[in-house]
Order: sequence, then structure tokens, then C-alpha cells
Amino acid sequence: MTMYSVHPVAGLPEFRAGDDLPVILSDHLATGDPGLAPGDILVVTQKIVSKAEGRMFDLACVDVSDEARKLAGITLKEPALVELVLRESSAVVRAVPNVLITRHRLGHVMANAGIDASNLGKGGENRVLLLPEDPDSSARRIAEPCQDRTGVLPGVVISDSFGRPWRIGTTNVAIGTAGPPAVIDERGKPDRDGRIMQVTQIAFADSVAAAAGLAMGEGPEGLPACVVRGLEWQPGYQTSSDLLRPPGEDLFR
Amino acid sequence: MTMYSVHPVAGLPEFRAGDDLPVILSDHLATGDPGLAPGDILVVTQKIVSKAEGRMFDLACVDVSDEARKLAGITLKEPALVELVLRESSAVVRAVPNVLITRHRLGHVMANAGIDASNLGKGGENRVLLLPEDPDSSARRIAEPCQDRTGVLPGVVISDSFGRPWRIGTTNVAIGTAGPPAVIDERGKPDRDGRIMQVTQIAFADSVAAAAGLAMGEGPEGLPACVVRGLEWQPGYQTSSDLLRPPGEDLFR
Repeated sequence: MTMYSVHPVAGLPEFRAGDDLPVILSDHLATGDPGLAPGDILVVTQKIVSKAEGRMFDLACVDVSDEARKLAGITLKEPALVELVLRESSAVVRAVPNVLITRHRLGHVMANAGIDASNLGKGGENRVLLLPEDPDSSARRIAEPCQDRTGVLPGVVISDSFGRPWRIGTTNVAIGTAGPPAVIDERGKPDRDGRIMQVTQIAFADSVAAAAGLAMGEGPEGLPACVVRGLEWQPGYQTSSDLLRPPGEDLFR
Repeated sequence: MTMYSVHPVAGLPEFRAGDDLPVILSDHLATGDPGLAPGDILVVTQKIVSKAEGRMFDLACVDVSDEARKLAGITLKEPALVELVLRESSAVVRAVPNVLITRHRLGHVMANAGIDASNLGKGGENRVLLLPEDPDSSARRIAEPCQDRTGVLPGVVISDSFGRPWRIGTTNVAIGTAGPPAVIDERGKPDRDGRIMQVTQIAFADSVAAAAGLAMGEGPEGLPACVVRGLEWQPGYQTSSDLLRPPGEDLFR
């Protein structure tokens, strides 16, 4: 084990629908700090990916179904928001006043299907931002121009901040990955004394996202990307879906 | 936001019951890499804290209650282990074959009350390791001799690896803290466009533990401590219990 470091990427512009985020980001990394070095993992927040991919919706323009209207009555949430949550979800996990937890179509169990209304730019009072259509694809699309422009093919993680059952506060997790392992499986390996380790699967990409969150911050001073440098990892073909426990295997309920 | 770095602490001895972990660790940091600098957070795994505090138990010497025997039948786990889990817990959350989730007396909802049977040293086939009695106190006791020996009072986080509902793999979380905020509360602050942010409480200590986990690793090559250097934080009086959602407030079920 050696030390590693986490470098925020400062100076990126505000992103709008249609912006070529992969090119803008890779150009930015090609010309300034922190650059890209072999083995780097570039962590990008969901928010700028979604903005560039045009995932902003105006609540005033959403047709609200009867189902959404009913659920809005239960959760005391805006009917148009609930409609978008339902469109983005495969199942409702919990709906009580002020709480709407669903299983997102990507498989994540989360509040409000990850739909966000903060830091959307001026005039965005009525607008909300959905998760990217396919964050694993987004991650791959970000990695490729980086290689063209910097000579380094980085790992890429798309992060989002998630609440947790039983614990207060959000941590960042990986909703998209390209390159780094999502989960490192140590099951069946011997421990230090030669016994077989029983339950050791390490959520590598989620831990990288959490580490990145500390460098990027939230709120007005938050930055939307950072570079994690010095970790040991082997590129592979896992994606963020490898982090998802199949519904029938949920151990906690 | 500026960069930060995570430095594993190599060369620590194996710890045994009665060892003065705070003194050994602070002596080690006073004389070698990575040392301690102002603002550092020292992250220490639960395992060496528990070992030094004598939290190892021999399963052959545990009197098993009827309740534990019954639960062992349901979970297919060793009755003596189940007995220790029950003694360490305030409530059983889930018990099915191969799964025993409880609310630990410290408040954490976790598998097997955090009791661990790996990397316990040679001859430890029948032994298991419980969480420290009071990890927040353990963290404070580690911080103090550091100041004497290095001139720096570090933040201290005691970490443990937790599974998560719905997501595969473990991440490290904070089960003890001294100094750094457990949760940073951004609720009520304006976002970048001046709107009030709705739900932003950041699980700072859990994110620090997750970041540290990437540097410390698990298994035979794992290291039991690291130094997180360069984060911005203000010392305060929160403890790990500030990370615990009261049972009645659990949003996910």
C-alpha cells in the first residue's frame, strides 16, 4: 500500500444541454492542473453529466398521471416531481409524508429517483435534473477523449450523493464506472493467518466516489470533478451495476 | 477546495490485549513516515483497537443461552457466536439462514454485531473479536498522546467495514470519532443560485473512513492505520453517535 491523493479540478465552466462534456473536460485536463497521470481515476459528479446530456426538465411541462397525483398526496411532494420519479423508477420502496424512496430504473434504491433541484443555474426555479440515461456509457464517453488529448486513458467514475438507511448524512457512491473495478472480491483468499476470509467484497468504486466527495464538496463552493491519483487498480469490464444487490438478495429486510 | 492525501502507516506491530495502542501508535508517528501535521486525521481500524483493548473472546468459553441457541438454529451460525452477538446488541433486525443483522448496543445496524473472526493471529481458530467498548473514548485516548509526542493533536476516526442494504461490497464507516465533524450540516444554506438547499447533510467522518479504507486495504496486505492530510475541517464535539439515525426516523423502511 502506498499513499494516494485526491485533486479537485477547478475552473470548469457551467455546463448546458448539448455541451460536449467529454471534450471540454479532457481539454481542460490536457492544459492545466491536475492533469492526468497513468492510473488516475477521474471522478465526475452526476450533476454536470446530466446537465450536458440535457436531463433538465421543467416541472410546469410535465403531464401528471393519476398514480403520481395519488402518490404526491401521500408524500406531500409536488405532483410533477412525483411523476418524473415514477417515470425514472421500476418500483416504489417507501412512500410516506416527505419521503419517497424508489428503485431507480438503473437499479439504485434512492430518494426521489436521484432527481435534484439545487444548483441548476439562474432561472431554474421550476426545473429539476434527472440522472443520466446510462451513466456507465457516460463514463466511457468521458474516458476516450482524455486518451486522445492527454495520452492517458483514465478510469472514470460518475458519482452521486446518496442517503443511507440507519445512518445520517450522505456519502458519494458510484452510479457509473469505466475502467476501475466496481467491487473487489477477496472471498476465498486466505487471511493473514492462512484461514479463508469469509465475507470480503470491497466496494471499490463507491469508496473512490466517497473519497472524491471530500475533495469536491457540496453547495456554492462545490467542484464537479476531481482526480484520484496513486491507487492500485487493474482496468476491467465491471460496471456500476456490479454494485447492485439483486432485489431478492437484500440482506437487511 | 484543495487536494488532500491519504498515507498508510506501515510497520506497526501486531497488537495484543493490554498493549498501550495510543502510546505505541503515537511513538511510531513521532519517529517515522508519515508523521503528523496540523489538520491531520488519523484513521485507525477497529481491529487493532479491539485487540489492544482485550475484546477477543474464545467461543469455547461462552455460555450459550436458550435464545441464542434458537437463533443459531434459524441463522445456521455457531451458537456461541450468536450468544456474543446478542450480548452486544439491543435488537435483532433480521435473522434468516446465514444472515444475522442486529442493532449493536452502540446504535449501528450491522451484520453479526461487528464480530470478526479473520486476521486474529495464529492459534485464533476459535476466537472472535468484538467491537471496542466505547470507540469514541478509544479515539480520544489515541489523540491525546499524539499531542504529547508529536506536538500535533490529530483528529481520530476509528473505522470498520460495513455492508450496505441494496449495494454489494463493504465500505469503511466511522464507529468512533474525536475531533472531526461526524456530519456537516449544510441545510438552510443557499445553493450557488441563492436557493435554500433542502437536504444536504454530509457524512464527513464516514467519507473519511471510506477514503482511508482505500489506502489501508483488507486481507493479508492490509494495514491498520493511515493519516488523511489536507482536508479542511473544524474540531468539534460531535461523536460517532451523531451519524446514527434514531430508529423511528429510518427513512428506508
